[in-house]
Amino acid sequence: MTAEILTIGDEILIGQITNTNSVWLARELNLSGIRINKMETVGDSEDAIMDAFRSALDRADFVFITGGLGPTRDDITKKVFAEFMDVPLALHQPSLDHINSYFSQRGRGIIDMNQQLALIPEGCTVIPNGHGTAPGMWMKKSNTVFISMPGVPFEMKAMITDHILPKIKGEFKLPFIFHKTILTQGIGESALATMIGSWEDGLAVKGIKLAYLPQPGIVRLRLSCYGNDAGKLRQDVESAISELQPLISKYIYAFEEYGQENITPERVLSELLRSRNETVALAESCTGGYISSLLTAIPGASRFFAGAIVPYSNQAKHNLLEVDETLFTTVGAVSRECVVQLAANVRKKFDSDYAISVSGIAGPDGGTGEKPVGTVWIAVADRERVLPVKFRFGDIRERNIMMTAAAAANLLRKFILNRQLAPE
Amino acid sequence: MTAEILTIGDEILIGQITNTNSVWLARELNLSGIRINKMETVGDSEDAIMDAFRSALDRADFVFITGGLGPTRDDITKKVFAEFMDVPLALHQPSLDHINSYFSQRGRGIIDMNQQLALIPEGCTVIPNGHGTAPGMWMKKSNTVFISMPGVPFEMKAMITDHILPKIKGEFKLPFIFHKTILTQGIGESALATMIGSWEDGLAVKGIKLAYLPQPGIVRLRLSCYGNDAGKLRQDVESAISELQPLISKYIYAFEEYGQENITPERVLSELLRSRNETVALAESCTGGYISSLLTAIPGASRFFAGAIVPYSNQAKHNLLEVDETLFTTVGAVSRECVVQLAANVRKKFDSDYAISVSGIAGPDGGTGEKPVGTVWIAVADRERVLPVKFRFGDIRERNIMMTAAAAANLLRKFILNRQLAPE
Repeated sequence: MTAEILTIGDEILIGQITNTNSVWLARELNLSGIRINKMETVGDSEDAIMDAFRSALDRADFVFITGGLGPTRDDITKKVFAEFMDVPLALHQPSLDHINSYFSQRGRGIIDMNQQLALIPEGCTVIPNGHGTAPGMWMKKSNTVFISMPGVPFEMKAMITDHILPKIKGEFKLPFIFHKTILTQGIGESALATMIGSWEDGLAVKGIKLAYLPQPGIVRLRLSCYGNDAGKLRQDVESAISELQPLISKYIYAFEEYGQENITPERVLSELLRSRNETVALAESCTGGYISSLLTAIPGASRFFAGAIVPYSNQAKHNLLEVDETLFTTVGAVSRECVVQLAANVRKKFDSDYAISVSGIAGPDGGTGEKPVGTVWIAVADRERVLPVKFRFGDIRERNIMMTAAAAANLLRKFILNRQLAPE
Repeated sequence: MTAEILTIGDEILIGQITNTNSVWLARELNLSGIRINKMETVGDSEDAIMDAFRSALDRADFVFITGGLGPTRDDITKKVFAEFMDVPLALHQPSLDHINSYFSQRGRGIIDMNQQLALIPEGCTVIPNGHGTAPGMWMKKSNTVFISMPGVPFEMKAMITDHILPKIKGEFKLPFIFHKTILTQGIGESALATMIGSWEDGLAVKGIKLAYLPQPGIVRLRLSCYGNDAGKLRQDVESAISELQPLISKYIYAFEEYGQENITPERVLSELLRSRNETVALAESCTGGYISSLLTAIPGASRFFAGAIVPYSNQAKHNLLEVDETLFTTVGAVSRECVVQLAANVRKKFDSDYAISVSGIAGPDGGTGEKPVGTVWIAVADRERVLPVKFRFGDIRERNIMMTAAAAANLLRKFILNRQLAPE
């Protein structure tokens, strides 16, 4: 089964709002085994909508349309839909009853404009709108089913979940899809591709597709497989992953199955800490509170996050975290010595189980020949040991801060696990 | 001038990532007087990309293409681009030099895969990639200019801003556009709409379009005017703004002219502090370092940012910032008393000119009848005074943190300016 998603609305084309309906629809449909071949957005114009309908005909099994069903003059999707289907609009009594009761429940009388919402192209299947007034429409032309829904996200989502997906699953036999994503940190996209090239060569014959999804500091490798045997798909993907794992094991920090939200290094760290009933404290110089903000964005953060100090100046590093002052004139604040003292001392201050400290040159200024922009020292510590590591990221302040956060969270995760594997 | 935006990438079609490139591009192009007629997303498939290229030909003046230019095998945009243009790929020496220097600056040798990035369709104009390795491409076929860019947002954005828009403006006559945006904090979209309704009614006859652009805690009001007389456009917009200003003056924190980046409350605060050679320190409880991370995201932050403490537990508030312990059992940590002590003490710790402190219930848990989720106390302080203010935001953790940051930065800005206007 293939589908296209068609979004109708000027507000998308002028960049006023982000098209979040499409991404939600794509995810839900994919999870149900319907493959999206194309997404398209056109404005509230009769010609543009008609062109989009015509060109989608017979190209996909389904066309999911959102937007343009409201009562105002700029909403013309239904009119064009009826023209395209070559049928007249007719009053649909159950929809009119629903609209009347919707307004009377809210203590408002129905106005003419809203009565027009109950006019429906003759012969189409009406999709009830449980959260609003404009009904959805389902109608087949030639080999393609056109499904038109309101653009209001929660109205559209309820129609899909409560009515449309059950109807599709009842009437069509859908293939299975299996996706799994390997999350890596600390290696770039091209280095990774070189490292796994021969493994990648073997994927095609197994019918597995691989996608590289890079973010600052992180590359996600997504494997996808379509077919009719759910068990076999999972088996094929899992077996490909078990061949891949030894090649890049040191970079893998998590696996993501389809439907799970984006698993970040700080999220994995937080779950590890939570499972051990342990806490972390941070001393963040160049990241300026960013790692703390990521950790505290996680609900229930107080269970694993003790607190943080952002000692942005040398003076603050000395006054608040007892960093030896002579160090600033000898090795400087961006140094092994400095992050070691920061990590050890911030852990003591908060009496936490672990600490992370970072000191670096985020840029754009402050770089030197010896310590160019992107030089970052990170240390992780527990009650006995401190492990400092030097990194060299890039030129862009924002990316350097993001890459430092990913590296720091993953470094502490590995530090905790290694300690567990090989206790001293 | 009309354009279409074509996004290439399976990750969009399976709903794994939201297409933020398109909304950014649409906004930037519209602001420059280029109208977007269509947005389209297709997968990393040769047929789908070629079909999209062919059908866009002669339909628009420009096709802006993002994605599929990376070095890995799933990236096939360039190959299809060359086939569509009917030219071979040839080595582009300046791009190769750039790629070599990019990798050698990072202490890494260039690998074969990356050399392929320097192969360019013969005869196309190369758009330099200041922030990455894959060059962009500009090539005309029949009446349409096809512009292909990487999908990595900051690489694409820099290409548009630094190279592509200047080139378009140099080679084509675009209509004049004048945009000015009024930035408000502390009032919601519908309350604002009610407050300025009659002013808004008068805009249409002046040919001015108004857009409400809400973000958590902030609503931006963008006025746009298109025409052929640049001076008159500016005059019309400025006169409309001077009528608006008295209606909502207490919510306005800045004005933004087109071309300026998004002016946030923390950016305005940072500029005020910089101009006064003064510094701020933060004690962030429920925001967990988020406000600090916003301030330190600004290059040169050390000039106005002294540092921060994130005392996430009551114990940390007491141990690190000398909050009176009895207070936790009487009024609690989310209280006027607590933020007053936090602000006064963190200012002293860092010896800064000002301080901001926040303590609240971000959610989803921790709310009570008396202090529901979304209750936040913020205090601002200078060397003499502390001003505590209570806020009630919403139910969503992420939004509450963002709204607190906007409110806190704007509160300190007003505190500084009021002191200046009415010295005690």
